[in-house]
Amino acid sequence: MGWIGTGVMGAAMCAHMIEAGHPVTVHSRTRARAEPLLSRGAVWADSPAEVAARSDVIFTIVGFPADVREVVLGPRGALGRIRTDAILVDMTTSEPSLAREIHAAARARGAWALDAPVSGGDVGAISATLSIMVGGDASVLERVRPLLARLGRTIVLQGDAGAGQHTKMVNQTLIAANMVGVCEALLYARRAGLDPLRVIASVGGGAASSWAIHQLGPKIAARDFAPGFYVEHFVKDMGIALREAKRMGLALPGLELAERLYRELPPLGHGRSGTQALVLALERLAQSEESDLYPPRK
Amino acid sequence: MGWIGTGVMGAAMCAHMIEAGHPVTVHSRTRARAEPLLSRGAVWADSPAEVAARSDVIFTIVGFPADVREVVLGPRGALGRIRTDAILVDMTTSEPSLAREIHAAARARGAWALDAPVSGGDVGAISATLSIMVGGDASVLERVRPLLARLGRTIVLQGDAGAGQHTKMVNQTLIAANMVGVCEALLYARRAGLDPLRVIASVGGGAASSWAIHQLGPKIAARDFAPGFYVEHFVKDMGIALREAKRMGLALPGLELAERLYRELPPLGHGRSGTQALVLALERLAQSEESDLYPPRK
Repeated sequence: MGWIGTGVMGAAMCAHMIEAGHPVTVHSRTRARAEPLLSRGAVWADSPAEVAARSDVIFTIVGFPADVREVVLGPRGALGRIRTDAILVDMTTSEPSLAREIHAAARARGAWALDAPVSGGDVGAISATLSIMVGGDASVLERVRPLLARLGRTIVLQGDAGAGQHTKMVNQTLIAANMVGVCEALLYARRAGLDPLRVIASVGGGAASSWAIHQLGPKIAARDFAPGFYVEHFVKDMGIALREAKRMGLALPGLELAERLYRELPPLGHGRSGTQALVLALERLAQSEESDLYPPRK
Repeated sequence: MGWIGTGVMGAAMCAHMIEAGHPVTVHSRTRARAEPLLSRGAVWADSPAEVAARSDVIFTIVGFPADVREVVLGPRGALGRIRTDAILVDMTTSEPSLAREIHAAARARGAWALDAPVSGGDVGAISATLSIMVGGDASVLERVRPLLARLGRTIVLQGDAGAGQHTKMVNQTLIAANMVGVCEALLYARRAGLDPLRVIASVGGGAASSWAIHQLGPKIAARDFAPGFYVEHFVKDMGIALREAKRMGLALPGLELAERLYRELPPLGHGRSGTQALVLALERLAQSEESDLYPPRK
């Protein structure tokens, strides 16, 4: 098989494929990032096209939609030399419209494409417990399902091409508004003189419960901003979701608020902090009288 | 013991006390609401003061802070005839400042007060699995803990008088922003042509997971707005939290957004719908070009 993209997620996922005994041809923008995989038996290819020329299934997991476009549709992209009936599986969180474009381009070459973004982060990638949200053709998913099962526990076909990406946008929309709530709630708790961990013991078992309050709440309380998931990647994802929402005529004020708050963080040096650093943007807001994010109450 | 307030929550909770064999003196604004309890052995009293005159521990769980003020501090309120060393336990979701005022007034009469709002809703009240968030004196809580254990599973002293109410505000702040996220996410899913239950299967196991997406998501998908928790009560709670936040100099834009959206529902006839009816406010927003809740993107 082929593997393109060896960041934190991609490297961990590709390693599972090698461990399972699959012959892997790998390419990444920076060859050094691929070395640990090459030393375990993967074979290097100089371009995405070269990977595709040697593979029946090609996985891509890169950074931004522009990177997906380059490695798939670009001059040296995978589709340029994709084999007949081969399957391209893009696991990057990217644009639904780009997923549809890639699907159509693959079909035009007699090949197939699935969009299959994941949730679960680096921990899920390492432990092979990712949730994989798939858009594309059911029979094509069945052909690669045994491979995806090496990477994740929940593999659901959500619909036609683009539906996997749309589902990931739903996932990020849920996280975005909830992170605002978690950070505001813990700010309130601190300002009210409460002990945050004791508060979580009271509120964490019922209707206010969420993954974020349990996993990130204690980190916020400890002012530990080490990344599980980078702020800058989340900003990218929210931007995609907002553009898609606008295209569909949907107003998502909670997501928009979250995105505006998160966008304040990279200029403060927190682009590569974890998403829980959102509390810093809310703290700044509390100190700024003139914020346009918080219009005066009527 | 004394029990004041026999709404959905209060009636279920008081019934547990009767079942456990405690002699209960009960009062409620509408005597008819107390009849089921009277028929099971509770004794009627004509006023909160009368309840207090006969009780060592008095529980109150009424509607709004103004109701708390009336039944506790009013001309016929419980504190007017409270016994020396008796304990008043207010389980209404109410104002932290009012809780402190009641605590001081009780102490001035040689009695005690705890604020002890709950989460878990009618289901939690019926199954005696409430989370009880307590503010007040530790030794006073220990005296009533065996009684509270008849009502809930999680009983945590959060600090001095008012800290229980503050903790409940943290709980509601978490719910508020997350409900915005859940409704926006499911609106996005629907508009993108996804199946909401299949989407929940993909996103419900990871970082986007919350009580609300699992419990209320399917109801939103089915357009089932039957109440677990009333919109109008939630609006009251968010109003308290926002006033407290303002007093503390805190900007909570997510909570403010949620409150503004929720406030649209009672005039539409959804004051007594469940909190999942928020999706209706967001749908209206999507149809309104001129909404000031969704400023045009730059």
